[in-house]
Parts: sequence; C-alpha cells; structure tokens
Amino acid sequence: MDPFLLAAIEEAELGLAEGGIPIGSVLVHDGAIVGRGHNRRVQKGSTVLHAEMDALENAGRRSARFYRECTLYTTLSPCPMCSGAVVLYGIPRVVIGENRSFMGEEQWLCSHGVALEVRQDERCIGLMRDFMHDNPTLWAEDIGE
Amino acid sequence: MDPFLLAAIEEAELGLAEGGIPIGSVLVHDGAIVGRGHNRRVQKGSTVLHAEMDALENAGRRSARFYRECTLYTTLSPCPMCSGAVVLYGIPRVVIGENRSFMGEEQWLCSHGVALEVRQDERCIGLMRDFMHDNPTLWAEDIGE
Repeated sequence: MDPFLLAAIEEAELGLAEGGIPIGSVLVHDGAIVGRGHNRRVQKGSTVLHAEMDALENAGRRSARFYRECTLYTTLSPCPMCSGAVVLYGIPRVVIGENRSFMGEEQWLCSHGVALEVRQDERCIGLMRDFMHDNPTLWAEDIGE
Repeated sequence: MDPFLLAAIEEAELGLAEGGIPIGSVLVHDGAIVGRGHNRRVQKGSTVLHAEMDALENAGRRSARFYRECTLYTTLSPCPMCSGAVVLYGIPRVVIGENRSFMGEEQWLCSHGVALEVRQDERCIGLMRDFMHDNPTLWAEDIGE
C-alpha cells in the first residue's frame, strides 16, 4: 500500500482514538513526510483544524517553491476550506483516500490545475461510514450542515 | 465609521504592533462581535491562521444555523483559504476593507451566493501599502507567492 496514504490513515485512526473525527492527512515533499495531522474539532475545539489544515500547520512556514513540489494526502475529499488552502499555497497534487462519504471541492481544484488521485480506499471508506453513522450531529457540524 | 470594520482594523493594528502582518477580522452575529482575530504567521509561526481563520477559530464551535446569520468583516480581500472557510460554513455576507492591495477569491464567493461589500477604506489600504512596501518577502510567503 502507498505508505503516505497509510500514514494519513494512521493519523485518522489516532484522531478516532482521541474521540475525534477520523480524518487524517500528510504533506509530502521529495519522498518524505514534512507535516502530518488529523481533524482537531473535538480535541482542541477547533473550527479550522481540519486534517489537511493540521498537516499544513504542522509542516511550518515554507516557501512558495517548496509547496509547489509537495503532494497532500488526505483520507477524505477536501472541503472548500482545505481546498482553498491547497489553491493558496499552490500545492500541485492531492491524493484522496475516498470521496464516497463526502465530495469536496474537487472540480474547483481541477479548475486551478491541481492533479487529483482518488483511491477509493476501503479502510478510509469504512472509517467515515462508521463515524458518520454513529455521530451524525458532529459530522454535520464539521462540514457546516 | 462602521464599528465592526473599525474593530477589524484595530485587530490589524494589534498584529502590526506584534511584528506581524496587519490584517484583521471580526465575526459578527446579531449585532455583536463573537470572534476577533488577526494574522498570526509571525507570532505563532502559523500558516493557517490568516486573520479570518483566527477570528473563526476564536469564535469557537458553532452550529450551521449560527454561521448562516453571521457577517465576516476583514480588512483585506479574502484569499482562497479564507474564502473556502466562508463557503464551508455558509457565512452569507463578507464586508471587505479593501481589495486594491490584494484581490482574493471574490468571484468564487459571489458564485456561491455570498454577498460582498468592498469599502475601499483608506486606513486599510494604508496599512497594507506600507506593510507590502517594507516586507515584500513576508507578504509573498503569506499568499504563497
């Protein structure tokens, strides 16, 4: 299995074990993980630290050139906020664990020239399916619904 | 002067006094400020806490219904990330201090039905003009350029 998607899944599972929303993400540069994170809504009371944002935050301050050599991995299709961060920093490629549970702003990302790969990974799908079934109110809050 | 835009400007000036990027924002609900913030790139080494994100974070966890009754004030036209947060949470109205120094994703916001008011406020314009002149590298980093 892709070790970077696996690392994102491990982040999602860590979030779940903390009582949080099981979405994980890693930022990869030159074959190495430079930032990893998971959704922190429950853990930190955060409305902005979706998994992708947490990974970007944990990667620290980087140059535009650096971001343009990165791939962002995420277990779930990125919402408008996280997609906006990808566009802001000019990240050229996003690998998405699955988009069956939630379809983010994939079309908008494509329109900005971002290359997307959707893996439809069964482990990612299972994590979200179970979480959404058990926590519909929390999930709705996370996506502003 | 609009007291909410003034509060956003005060946040921007607070950020400048801290050695940071002078952009401020407040989230307003039912005639009251429920979250205020400013850009934290320098102060916290944050890549995600643009002013609007900081204001949203400081407003805490809210329901979708709450956000749909809010107005977000920001001293500068919102970048793709901050615009994405507005779309995610369904904030219906954004008041923008100015868009002469930087044009964000205003068209995309409009396409999502967000009502925008651009004030072209001289104080907002002056803050960014001076900052961009004195700190071009830091400003470029903040907008991924």
